[in-house]
Amino acid sequence: MKFTRFMHNSTVYTGIVEGEAIKEISGDMFADWQYTGETFTQSEVKFLAPLLPNQIIGIGANYVSKVEDLPSELPDIPVFFFKPTSSVIGPEEEIIIPQGIDEVKFESELAIVIGKEAKNVPESEVLDYVFGYTVGNDVTAPQFFHQDGHWTIGKSFDTFTPLGPVIETELDPFQVRVEAKLNGEEKQNSATELMIIPIRRMISYLTNVLTLKPGDVILTGSPVGAELVGTGDEISCEIKEIGALRNTFAAVKESTKA
Amino acid sequence: MKFTRFMHNSTVYTGIVEGEAIKEISGDMFADWQYTGETFTQSEVKFLAPLLPNQIIGIGANYVSKVEDLPSELPDIPVFFFKPTSSVIGPEEEIIIPQGIDEVKFESELAIVIGKEAKNVPESEVLDYVFGYTVGNDVTAPQFFHQDGHWTIGKSFDTFTPLGPVIETELDPFQVRVEAKLNGEEKQNSATELMIIPIRRMISYLTNVLTLKPGDVILTGSPVGAELVGTGDEISCEIKEIGALRNTFAAVKESTKA
Repeated sequence: MKFTRFMHNSTVYTGIVEGEAIKEISGDMFADWQYTGETFTQSEVKFLAPLLPNQIIGIGANYVSKVEDLPSELPDIPVFFFKPTSSVIGPEEEIIIPQGIDEVKFESELAIVIGKEAKNVPESEVLDYVFGYTVGNDVTAPQFFHQDGHWTIGKSFDTFTPLGPVIETELDPFQVRVEAKLNGEEKQNSATELMIIPIRRMISYLTNVLTLKPGDVILTGSPVGAELVGTGDEISCEIKEIGALRNTFAAVKESTKA
Repeated sequence: MKFTRFMHNSTVYTGIVEGEAIKEISGDMFADWQYTGETFTQSEVKFLAPLLPNQIIGIGANYVSKVEDLPSELPDIPVFFFKPTSSVIGPEEEIIIPQGIDEVKFESELAIVIGKEAKNVPESEVLDYVFGYTVGNDVTAPQFFHQDGHWTIGKSFDTFTPLGPVIETELDPFQVRVEAKLNGEEKQNSATELMIIPIRRMISYLTNVLTLKPGDVILTGSPVGAELVGTGDEISCEIKEIGALRNTFAAVKESTKA
């Protein structure tokens, strides 16, 4: 099923996409929901980020370019980072390039949505705690990385985490390709088997540290090919089975500068 | 006013502490609340973390030992980091030392609670967006810092962010001392004027990056004197005008190991 949040006449709804139709639901997406009986068509709504995450966890530099490059031993401590929930936007919204710089990096990623509280979960059971999958763009301004290796500011600007267009609950995450097209030209296109820390290991490791909660989003890393881009560029992050997450980069508007 | 969350007969309440009494309130602490008319006494309740934060932002290495050591120029990019909300506990709860290590570090801190959405706020207006102040303990396992400088895992374990005992809304944050007593012995005791990045600058900088929201908590850094401690140690993080946040360190219980 493809869960979505969308706007129609200034009201926000939750629903399930079926072909051109969207069937409205009510209740808690993760626990207990019902169809309301109301139906919309895709052309009359604006898709929003498919959830307001509880928190967002990313993993750094997690893809190799070919299977032969996968390391024989995994690192002891993966590079995880948090992104603020205030950085989330939906499809077709503008990614705002921060004041003082001209370019930021796109990073197309498979995003995992946690559906159940998860603590100390072994790798073999990890997928039982996953609600579904969406596409994420882990927009990054490396100019704001601290020289001592702290990435926080460079990944935290408002609009730096586009998510969408839907949460697909029936995906096999080991059988998809993560793609990005910049102004229509392919820049990223890798199978998820090229992840250095694989999905089960990543989530299990996290649950040995912290309690994952429903609505937590895990950005699983970006394939090789991410680039710096500027105002006017259009990025489309895609996973065929989920959809295309398109956003355009724009400069800060003068009136909103501090 | 001193806002608190507390438990009585397994029910969670919000209230305001007045001497030995706690007057229950209902509604949104940040926006619109009323007294319910119900009153408790401190001795019959268990204090909880005074809020469930929206998100938690920390700042690294932010104190000098004496005023003369304050740098003449501030760093361009402060070291900020996020802690997961799942790491929050309240007063008197146990801080659990992760499996595989014997010691963790306490860090007593002044914690700022944001009360209003804040974006691009100049330093002179920053305090208008602050709801109040509590005491935080930014518990840290440096053994889990990544060699490339990423602190995320070392600061993210469950129980690693004690907060409390109350949110004081009438504090002058520039006139307080941040203290820690380990098993009764003073280990930290510094005035907040020893912060390298001062409070107004810190919050203003953050609002130029991201939109702060009601319930965001900013841990403003820990004075010199933080130490590694182990099972059985008792830490009391204190700011006289707010109260004492006491917790004991304990090992992982066998049954909860992954």
